Amino acid sequence: MPSSITSKLDKFRCMKRSISEINLDPLQRGGILTPEARAALVEWGDGYSVCDFCEGMLDRVRNPPVEEFVHEILPRFLDVDDVRITHGAREGMYAAMHSLCDAGDYIVADGNAHYTTVLAAERAGLEISYVENSGEPEYTINPEGYREAIRDAADQGYRVSMAVLTYPDGNYGNLVDARRVAEICHEEGVPLLLNGAYSIGRMPVSARELDADIVVGSGHKSMASSGPIGVLGAKQEYADIIFRRSKSKKNKEVELLGCTVRGAGLLTMMASFPHVLERVGRWQEEVDKARWFSSELEELGIEQQGEKPHNHDLMFFKSERLYEISKSARKGRYFLYHELKDRGICGIKPGLTRQFKLSTYLIPREDLERVVSAFHEIIEMGSRVEAE
Amino acid sequence: MPSSITSKLDKFRCMKRSISEINLDPLQRGGILTPEARAALVEWGDGYSVCDFCEGMLDRVRNPPVEEFVHEILPRFLDVDDVRITHGAREGMYAAMHSLCDAGDYIVADGNAHYTTVLAAERAGLEISYVENSGEPEYTINPEGYREAIRDAADQGYRVSMAVLTYPDGNYGNLVDARRVAEICHEEGVPLLLNGAYSIGRMPVSARELDADIVVGSGHKSMASSGPIGVLGAKQEYADIIFRRSKSKKNKEVELLGCTVRGAGLLTMMASFPHVLERVGRWQEEVDKARWFSSELEELGIEQQGEKPHNHDLMFFKSERLYEISKSARKGRYFLYHELKDRGICGIKPGLTRQFKLSTYLIPREDLERVVSAFHEIIEMGSRVEAE
Repeated sequence: MPSSITSKLDKFRCMKRSISEINLDPLQRGGILTPEARAALVEWGDGYSVCDFCEGMLDRVRNPPVEEFVHEILPRFLDVDDVRITHGAREGMYAAMHSLCDAGDYIVADGNAHYTTVLAAERAGLEISYVENSGEPEYTINPEGYREAIRDAADQGYRVSMAVLTYPDGNYGNLVDARRVAEICHEEGVPLLLNGAYSIGRMPVSARELDADIVVGSGHKSMASSGPIGVLGAKQEYADIIFRRSKSKKNKEVELLGCTVRGAGLLTMMASFPHVLERVGRWQEEVDKARWFSSELEELGIEQQGEKPHNHDLMFFKSERLYEISKSARKGRYFLYHELKDRGICGIKPGLTRQFKLSTYLIPREDLERVVSAFHEIIEMGSRVEAE
Repeated sequence: MPSSITSKLDKFRCMKRSISEINLDPLQRGGILTPEARAALVEWGDGYSVCDFCEGMLDRVRNPPVEEFVHEILPRFLDVDDVRITHGAREGMYAAMHSLCDAGDYIVADGNAHYTTVLAAERAGLEISYVENSGEPEYTINPEGYREAIRDAADQGYRVSMAVLTYPDGNYGNLVDARRVAEICHEEGVPLLLNGAYSIGRMPVSARELDADIVVGSGHKSMASSGPIGVLGAKQEYADIIFRRSKSKKNKEVELLGCTVRGAGLLTMMASFPHVLERVGRWQEEVDKARWFSSELEELGIEQQGEKPHNHDLMFFKSERLYEISKSARKGRYFLYHELKDRGICGIKPGLTRQFKLSTYLIPREDLERVVSAFHEIIEMGSRVEAE
């Protein structure tokens, strides 16, 4: 390589992460590693270390105890027949869509679906019919909308081969009545995939109780794992198709290309699992804390959107006040980002003031009090500047 | 969860890896982390840490300097127009096949192809026509075989939309004349994908010089990275298709489902890259060492298969002698595994004696001398036992 390139390489040798003391980023709250997972990363960091004693199938590795984790622990945890490890929730959705749907089919998805639902469908050659949300301020999804959307697509001559519900969605943190959605989809003869990227690992999710046919979860989003990694569970009839074996490579599953997370990420998920199980049991505390935080911000005139009272740590807020302040602020629409950063707080997207999302997940109440005070100060200060 | 499960969880909290001092596993030699990568793992271990300052595209993240790595450094390193990060070589092959071929098409692959080539093709709905190897002892692939295989499939009415060459293959470590294969494929109007899982990051590979249209590499196999992670490079005309944007999510690439390695693995690849670049420059030393090791084992009657003189650290050996010994050994066919393990050596698959593969990559010559002595002792000992 020319020296013009090699001289640039030194910076790769020591890359430091710079984040604030309090991180409100919904994407990151549930993926912070446990000390056990951090130790596992170092112990198993080398490429393919998981495969020291592999006999041909990742999910059957006994040392480390992957087989027990994948075939015993996770099916109990998700309350579903069969589970595999994936590269993430999106890769799980794609695997399910690619194996259960045919190109040209329609799927029905909630209007709050994550962009990766759209990409997974597009990659699999599928079209999407949406169940629109109710709009401001709650943006809820009516389960009955699934029936309409399925019938509309069918009436137009399309085959609807899957329904997807984002549980909760990643914008408003709304938890739709999944049990009812499943019931409706099944009445219409369509299997339901539940995208639990923000629920599995945070709150109790039983695929059986919700009657979801397929569930996907995200290790890096909600299971204290070093990503990318996820879980994909399915009822046996769908698992048989999704996890089908190769015609010529008898112990390899086609849709997973043999093995998925053949690295340390899997060990971090396993190492964090006892903690994840325990925190799922304390979910109600997180809901209570989120509700309290929401009410504190609302007292400052920052309005929570989405379901109220809220049932999840991921929340969407709206503030005309902060938006007004930004108009005359020296740093313009970046003022909120910088003001929070100066107070040791990050995770709200730079440039946002009028509406933004955040998560209170696993943040101690004292820290959230600091966040509330910060918003209070920023609004006060902004009002003074405007008055001058 | 029932207590019968929770009582099993303690073992997940502290999982230790147990490997020998000298590891000959070809799968693992090139994936051992550098100290810099190990530090990056700890620093960036948390789920989605790479996304602290993401503006919507993983490969455009500037802090850490992912954009520079993916769009400037890697294209120079692979000598190809456009590069993206994937979950691994197999996922790169699938992305290329899925986007460039149509279900029902044929691909032509070398008879030594890795099983993941087969899975990627099967997942994409493709059939494979093989260029058979020459058989014992060299198992070479004749580039002219590609022309025959392409024409045969075409004569039978199939569309051949891709050729794959495994460079080197993962059984014999043979390096086919890729330049010539590319020439033939292009004469027949078929693009060539080069699977460099065992070359990229070990030896110099220039896609441009070899005239490969698409190249895939493996971070965990050959780029000192914590997997799963890989690279996928392509000439612009193919990159435009493989890395096409979503119809509705404008800054997301469909085939990558938006982002691929959105975690610490990417940072380990970046952190190890200065070392990888340097070691690629010392490749000839590794070839010389492999040849010396091969000649030492041959003196013990353990015959190297594949190309001779050999051009790669991955080698396949055959030994009727060890096989004979195993017949009367107390541990049967597992005797070799245990005898080597007792001498601090691992990486040859348990149960193999008559034929096995190994790699000498980055193993100091002194350690390889220990391996040679170990084989010498094991054969001597076995001969004594037989004589008794």
